[in-house]
Amino acid sequence: MSKSLPKRSEDYSLWYNELVKRAGLAENSAVRGCMVIKPYGYAIWEKMQRQLDDMFKRTGHQNAYFPLLVPKSMFEAEEKNAEGFAKECAVVTHYRLQTDPDNPGKLRVDPNAKLEEELIIRPTSEAIIWSTYKGWIQSYRDLPLLINQWANVMRWEMRTRLFLRTAEFLWQEGHTAHATAEEAIAETRQMLDVYAQFAEEWMALPVVKGVKSENERFAGALDTYCIEGLMQDGKALQAGTSHFLGQNFAKAFDVQFTNKEGQLEHVWGTSWGVSTRLMGALVMAHSDDEGLVLPPKLAPIQVVIVPIYKAGQLEELAERIRPIQMGLLDRGISVKFDDRDTERPGFKFAEWELKGVPVRIAVGMRDLESGTLEVARRDTKQKMNLPLADIVDSVAALLDDIQTNIYNKALHFRETHTTRVDTYEEFKQALEGEGGFVVAHWDGTSETEERIKEETKATIRCLALNEPDEEGVDMLTGKPSARRVFFARAY
Amino acid sequence: MSKSLPKRSEDYSLWYNELVKRAGLAENSAVRGCMVIKPYGYAIWEKMQRQLDDMFKRTGHQNAYFPLLVPKSMFEAEEKNAEGFAKECAVVTHYRLQTDPDNPGKLRVDPNAKLEEELIIRPTSEAIIWSTYKGWIQSYRDLPLLINQWANVMRWEMRTRLFLRTAEFLWQEGHTAHATAEEAIAETRQMLDVYAQFAEEWMALPVVKGVKSENERFAGALDTYCIEGLMQDGKALQAGTSHFLGQNFAKAFDVQFTNKEGQLEHVWGTSWGVSTRLMGALVMAHSDDEGLVLPPKLAPIQVVIVPIYKAGQLEELAERIRPIQMGLLDRGISVKFDDRDTERPGFKFAEWELKGVPVRIAVGMRDLESGTLEVARRDTKQKMNLPLADIVDSVAALLDDIQTNIYNKALHFRETHTTRVDTYEEFKQALEGEGGFVVAHWDGTSETEERIKEETKATIRCLALNEPDEEGVDMLTGKPSARRVFFARAY
Ligand SMILES: [Zn+2]
Ligand SMILES: [Zn+2]
Repeated sequence: MSKSLPKRSEDYSLWYNELVKRAGLAENSAVRGCMVIKPYGYAIWEKMQRQLDDMFKRTGHQNAYFPLLVPKSMFEAEEKNAEGFAKECAVVTHYRLQTDPDNPGKLRVDPNAKLEEELIIRPTSEAIIWSTYKGWIQSYRDLPLLINQWANVMRWEMRTRLFLRTAEFLWQEGHTAHATAEEAIAETRQMLDVYAQFAEEWMALPVVKGVKSENERFAGALDTYCIEGLMQDGKALQAGTSHFLGQNFAKAFDVQFTNKEGQLEHVWGTSWGVSTRLMGALVMAHSDDEGLVLPPKLAPIQVVIVPIYKAGQLEELAERIRPIQMGLLDRGISVKFDDRDTERPGFKFAEWELKGVPVRIAVGMRDLESGTLEVARRDTKQKMNLPLADIVDSVAALLDDIQTNIYNKALHFRETHTTRVDTYEEFKQALEGEGGFVVAHWDGTSETEERIKEETKATIRCLALNEPDEEGVDMLTGKPSARRVFFARAY
Repeated sequence: MSKSLPKRSEDYSLWYNELVKRAGLAENSAVRGCMVIKPYGYAIWEKMQRQLDDMFKRTGHQNAYFPLLVPKSMFEAEEKNAEGFAKECAVVTHYRLQTDPDNPGKLRVDPNAKLEEELIIRPTSEAIIWSTYKGWIQSYRDLPLLINQWANVMRWEMRTRLFLRTAEFLWQEGHTAHATAEEAIAETRQMLDVYAQFAEEWMALPVVKGVKSENERFAGALDTYCIEGLMQDGKALQAGTSHFLGQNFAKAFDVQFTNKEGQLEHVWGTSWGVSTRLMGALVMAHSDDEGLVLPPKLAPIQVVIVPIYKAGQLEELAERIRPIQMGLLDRGISVKFDDRDTERPGFKFAEWELKGVPVRIAVGMRDLESGTLEVARRDTKQKMNLPLADIVDSVAALLDDIQTNIYNKALHFRETHTTRVDTYEEFKQALEGEGGFVVAHWDGTSETEERIKEETKATIRCLALNEPDEEGVDMLTGKPSARRVFFARAY
């Protein structure tokens, strides 16, 4: 509270880090690359979880839980997947400590407690889950198998950033098994739609739905679908992925089923996930130099009431405010009455602004007598005087309006920061300017993609699903292209 | 389904293991000591979580998330705690795999990726959390700090059993910090009460609330409170613990605060937890030789409707059943309509009995015409014909009755399996007979407690809070005792 946040325009990266910490979302821990998710941050994550979980269940999925540790031999069974994650694996080699004979009061790893086979902390759970599915699937009647897991995973990243890239993160991972490729693809697409709907309706974050190029595909998948959002600094952020695994894992773990004709076939698979990375996207997409701007649907506190009073008046004022508080609560609106007697209103205003509470109501005795309350909305910082008589209705409508406005603002930003270019010059100019999505023709080769990445730091975010066919030529190689793809610098 | 369960009276332990697997609650994984929690089991755990989480929040707690891995030097800071868990610690020593040059397509641990300091997978999180609290607590205004975490933890147990004792398990761990010992003790007791209320009202499991003897205390605590339930084989099961930590962790991690008088003091702490072990307690306390008996408040499916029909009738029957189904759903009752055309009613009855669904309704055309439905309750296996006209009210009342009945049955079992004895002979007889709680005088020494354990395998479950003072002598040593304590053989 003491000093103001860094400005986005001056140091976006510093602004982000400071905001995440000062708003009480997360902080770095003593463990390299691992974060502590603080109560206010976790409360937002819980709201995300609850909504996503409801959406998964409505689409027929059930939750389960699989082991944290994966034996190395199991992990390496699907070779591409293993290769893709090998460099980031935390490895458990021992299962016991003992008192250190050279160092009283200290512990050391017990050399006699070495595991016969090393165990990997899951970077993702395909291996352990498909090895389990082998026991669960025999016949077409066991399919589809639609399972989701909420869990922590570990990827030993070298450069980490709160929420965006951490060694340990929380996520959900769906793992489904189907009788046919068509069904598995339909599932992959369905979950992509669920993610897009969640991002747009709940996070107020417009996203581009698309397919990854081969370079950016999940290791072990035949196709990776994704949703890509645009942050305020013009960088893209992958907010969720849904993979069509083909029969890769079924073959690696020998998961077969007897079809209706009595023949043995390998099962078709999908996996899909979103993580605490979404928290980073939420912060980066909407917040401003005063602090968080939270969409009302995910705000742990939707309305804060700040009493304005002279010494000795608080109790009476609180009494008069209670019906307003109760009215909002009855409407399902979460309300905080900030009755701290130790802080001044100005301090409280700044604190709740920092924390992104969508609506603030300041209430003094005089307001109650005049029958109008001063209401401030966080997104536009607009203040208005609203009649006390129908304050609950007005606030409910205001919250809806804020949700829509935040989305529209982000959509407008994306629209004004999406550039269609035809030459490599224009491409580089767009990136060097305000960034954003740059939509260009590409010849479809990894070589071209890699050269562009090296020269401009931009990657292909996706081949957008709703991008129309259009004949053209690759801006770099001049080779033919049938459709434009979305490039951007990305998190 | 194919063959019946082992009988409790013949092999209680085998009955339990088979039931857990066949009812679809959990199974062993390929990772030693780690289980897979299957969808039906996880659905029960989710109901437990939701209710406990609500109770924690109502008592002022917030959730947060702390790292999975703890540096060894941090872990050993509170010596007693470290000593207590050292023998069960999984240790991460490396952070990368590489392709094995001697073994194409295989991976090995990269010897160049050895961690400077080993990381422990949390067996419990006091160390990482108190090292974090140091940064969060400066003044009395920062207290109390009331935080809970839902997480996985790892304890390398040598002999494991599904739910009851697994290397990895899921739990919640509350960690609170207070300005005074009195407040911390009050918190410890409050959470014990929350656990007891949850066990009794939700799990239908009567519990004895008490304090552990020094031998059984949590490593690093000054006092461990617990709730103890009694299983059908006469063994006790510790279902939850709440620890008063004194200033042990505050001192180990130097967590001090400035009190109202401006002086520096160490903070007082508590921690408390329940785990997926509760799933084992739930199964063992109530289930029978036909399968699970679930208390309605925790049953994922509260009512199953099985249609009784001749070939070709199903569609019409389903149409007529839908209003019943909807009526129950509107009342907040979870209903499964088992319309599988591939299985016969008898098979379905047995399956839902195995899965412990509290109420089964069998519906045929004739029942609908006569206006009465055949309703079976799982707990007593009683069948009754209930009027269709007010079926929703009757089923709602029946569910309440089942919840109460299961609790009363367990309470009666505990009452008839609690023996007060005065001599060591009687003590051993009680244990050799039907087991249960044996309430006896004890001289308060660890030596006596250990001797009793060696000779009888019974441990002191707790010094029950509501046990009155009573002068007596230790049954073994003849030394004076001021109060009886609860002994039992235990899980
Ligand atoms: Zn711009
Ligand atoms: Zn008996």
